Amino acid sequence: MEAKKVSESKTIMTEMVMPPDTNTFGNLMGGILMKWMDVAGAICAGRHAENYVVTASVDNVSFEHPIRLGDIITLEAVVTRAFNTSIEVFIEVFIHDIVHKKNTKSNHAYFTFVALEPTSMRPTKVPEVLPITEQEENLYTGAVRRREIRLVLSGRMKPSEAIKVKEFLDLHQKK
Amino acid sequence: MEAKKVSESKTIMTEMVMPPDTNTFGNLMGGILMKWMDVAGAICAGRHAENYVVTASVDNVSFEHPIRLGDIITLEAVVTRAFNTSIEVFIEVFIHDIVHKKNTKSNHAYFTFVALEPTSMRPTKVPEVLPITEQEENLYTGAVRRREIRLVLSGRMKPSEAIKVKEFLDLHQKK
Amino acid sequence: MEAKKVSESKTIMTEMVMPPDTNTFGNLMGGILMKWMDVAGAICAGRHAENYVVTASVDNVSFEHPIRLGDIITLEAVVTRAFNTSIEVFIEVFIHDIVHKKNTKSNHAYFTFVALEPTSMRPTKVPEVLPITEQEENLYTGAVRRREIRLVLSGRMKPSEAIKVKEFLDLHQKK
Amino acid sequence: MEAKKVSESKTIMTEMVMPPDTNTFGNLMGGILMKWMDVAGAICAGRHAENYVVTASVDNVSFEHPIRLGDIITLEAVVTRAFNTSIEVFIEVFIHDIVHKKNTKSNHAYFTFVALEPTSMRPTKVPEVLPITEQEENLYTGAVRRREIRLVLSGRMKPSEAIKVKEFLDLHQKK
Amino acid sequence: MEAKKVSESKTIMTEMVMPPDTNTFGNLMGGILMKWMDVAGAICAGRHAENYVVTASVDNVSFEHPIRLGDIITLEAVVTRAFNTSIEVFIEVFIHDIVHKKNTKSNHAYFTFVALEPTSMRPTKVPEVLPITEQEENLYTGAVRRREIRLVLSGRMKPSEAIKVKEFLDLHQKK
Amino acid sequence: MEAKKVSESKTIMTEMVMPPDTNTFGNLMGGILMKWMDVAGAICAGRHAENYVVTASVDNVSFEHPIRLGDIITLEAVVTRAFNTSIEVFIEVFIHDIVHKKNTKSNHAYFTFVALEPTSMRPTKVPEVLPITEQEENLYTGAVRRREIRLVLSGRMKPSEAIKVKEFLDLHQKK
Repeated sequence: MEAKKVSESKTIMTEMVMPPDTNTFGNLMGGILMKWMDVAGAICAGRHAENYVVTASVDNVSFEHPIRLGDIITLEAVVTRAFNTSIEVFIEVFIHDIVHKKNTKSNHAYFTFVALEPTSMRPTKVPEVLPITEQEENLYTGAVRRREIRLVLSGRMKPSEAIKVKEFLDLHQKK
Repeated sequence: MEAKKVSESKTIMTEMVMPPDTNTFGNLMGGILMKWMDVAGAICAGRHAENYVVTASVDNVSFEHPIRLGDIITLEAVVTRAFNTSIEVFIEVFIHDIVHKKNTKSNHAYFTFVALEPTSMRPTKVPEVLPITEQEENLYTGAVRRREIRLVLSGRMKPSEAIKVKEFLDLHQKK
Repeated sequence: MEAKKVSESKTIMTEMVMPPDTNTFGNLMGGILMKWMDVAGAICAGRHAENYVVTASVDNVSFEHPIRLGDIITLEAVVTRAFNTSIEVFIEVFIHDIVHKKNTKSNHAYFTFVALEPTSMRPTKVPEVLPITEQEENLYTGAVRRREIRLVLSGRMKPSEAIKVKEFLDLHQKK
Repeated sequence: MEAKKVSESKTIMTEMVMPPDTNTFGNLMGGILMKWMDVAGAICAGRHAENYVVTASVDNVSFEHPIRLGDIITLEAVVTRAFNTSIEVFIEVFIHDIVHKKNTKSNHAYFTFVALEPTSMRPTKVPEVLPITEQEENLYTGAVRRREIRLVLSGRMKPSEAIKVKEFLDLHQKK
Repeated sequence: MEAKKVSESKTIMTEMVMPPDTNTFGNLMGGILMKWMDVAGAICAGRHAENYVVTASVDNVSFEHPIRLGDIITLEAVVTRAFNTSIEVFIEVFIHDIVHKKNTKSNHAYFTFVALEPTSMRPTKVPEVLPITEQEENLYTGAVRRREIRLVLSGRMKPSEAIKVKEFLDLHQKK
Repeated sequence: MEAKKVSESKTIMTEMVMPPDTNTFGNLMGGILMKWMDVAGAICAGRHAENYVVTASVDNVSFEHPIRLGDIITLEAVVTRAFNTSIEVFIEVFIHDIVHKKNTKSNHAYFTFVALEPTSMRPTKVPEVLPITEQEENLYTGAVRRREIRLVLSGRMKPSEAIKVKEFLDLHQKK
């Protein structure tokens, strides 16, 4: 199984905020945006895996800017790193207000997907990710730390084993 | 503004997994479950705040069990603690397979909502949470640590200032 | 097959009225409320039957209070009585206007479901209902009369055979 | 305000049963059919009233035939009688199985709608119904009896005042 | 296989424009109207073919009148002519503004469907169309010319072979 | 108003075919694909116009390849040419079958949109299109001919005035 470049599975999804997507304030519901991020991420991970995937986890997502009815949303999803049968995907969300010509970064998140072999429905190996640009390298390196946080938070790793998290905290606390 | 009990805003939401909620495997899409969690959390936070609320952030969510077409999902949402204009909500998801009579805990997550004053659309103060049971106390105490993690992860707090997180890690590393 | 308590299948469903649920006045459509009542009832009956169920009939439903965009709706469904392969469910709907802090009973209705054996798709026996509280007893007793009305209205029983209906009318006409 | 003929507002609605309309058996959900009946009835009543209408009540509906994915459903709605600001509509549902060439009457129901004056949102007078054919005459005559049943069932009329219902029961019990 | 009359498969579909069907202006989205036209056409073609059908092509559609939230839309679909395994359907759309009592023709289009044999999923022969009224005759005659235009536009016929189109243009250019 | 490059408004939309998008065969419904094309086109035209737009017309669309549940669809929309207040958009649809690793061009179409001034809701001038690549030039040149066909087909231009169409037919008939 050959490693694949990030660009081979990069996925761009564009949505226009329509009445059924909004809450009582006329703003995009957080839950709808998470659903779109999930679909964009699943398509990106599926293209990398060349297989269907299911969502395994979603890291902390924050919603800072209200998104209005009629705004255009672009979701850009790239794979960061593969871990045997799972793939971490980085998703960035941008808001385009076409009338006031403002483009804003809305937020971003990391989703993890597991590839399934269609007949047995069991996890199946995925190709490794080949980072090329500097941003791809950074996302690739950080993936181990984010994976440790996920394992600690879901109780599958003891905090004392989260080596990359500790290194990262120590580094930042010295500053 | 008087503190309110957790039970006053506890919200139970029941959903049956229907064909439009499923992916190509006939399982509930992760994105749909997140949307339901967002709605259950927003109703719970809205009842506590006695005001409309918007989603501010979602903590790490993991999806461990496939949920099948026809399964019944119960979402239970309770407020854990209020921070001036924001409210943290704890949401647990249970799966009921009515034919095989299996009930499973699916997963849980912490969502944070901000209450908005309807005319100005600006954040507005919310009542404090009055924890009574032991579980309510634990959720109340842990809320400060989870808030620190959120602030660090979103870059609004330096890791060195995350005191409760450090205490928690030290405590666990001694064990 | 052992009789089951009402509390074992009691179902609480919470919905927030969103833009796609409203009519041109910004109020919840009657048809959407009926759909939610059908789902809440089917989940409740399914839990009692421990089997999938299909809707057999809906009794008279009236809609007295307009329900506004942003209102929170609670549906509470309980089984009242089983008749061989069918189950009557009583569904009450409550409206919570979180901003004006008004809670109103919206309406109620009786739905009847039939349990199906999944492979043959034929009606299958369901457990009896064990009423315990006074309200459960009243719902249990009234179920025979409501069933007669249903059979008369659908032409499957002659009006002269509707004994419980006659008793009820006579009783009330003496008052 | 001139009386209007039934044919002036007769409404035919055709739907094809699609995946999102089905339950876990692949059959049309009862709740979806009720939603379609509500829309067909509201359009018919709105055309007669020349005004927007809201659903006031739904009489007993029974579901006798399973309706399959891919079946074509025809809903035919006609006004039966107007009562000051409300209109009773009779809705018949037919199933067309295009591959097996079977056409079946599925069921029927009576829905009542109230016309609203758009600015005040208050009930407003509707034109009377002018029945012409024999079936239209029968629906027009029966409307008073069905209205009594509705008022008795919703507790707004004492059973002893339901004169037309009593006449009807006596008539049938003599047979 | 016997030819069938146009009236045997004529399909009337009525829809009310609801909030989820509208764009940011509160008008019906063009894409939603096209979806409704596709469904109405597929039902009509399916009834003629007595088989399931899939959309093969849509001719030029223009949208001249804005359609408002709350408007009632009637779609009338009739078969015009069959070509071995495909059927052309003519769909007219009418707008009813019930409050201002205005009825307007919105637009029309020609859709072509192919009938599929359900097990092999291969195109299957359909009955011929028997035109009776003058309008049916005109639609039947014009179908050959429209088919030529479709074949030329999709690159499956050389412009020089589009005999009926040429005749039609020559005829109109002489005027 | 300065002319804008095609690349400034190019829009990529990615969709995964989900259960609610499919017909009874498990294939993407033609009507759903048209709805997606309409949204992709409207976003592209809106970005070029820096204003909201409404669909004015859709040229002949043909559907040649069945699109399966789970397939990933990419829609690429580019502006071809502006005509005072309207913009023609060229939309190409590609199918990605991730499991069998097949990428197929599904189809393409030309949609025309009109830009509206938000307060008056009247058509408003749009910037011209600046074609740069050879494909952009070809699309720009062909736009006049396609516009003539549209005007002839909708009865707003006499066939004898469709000069570009005639030139095109003559050119091809000489070959």
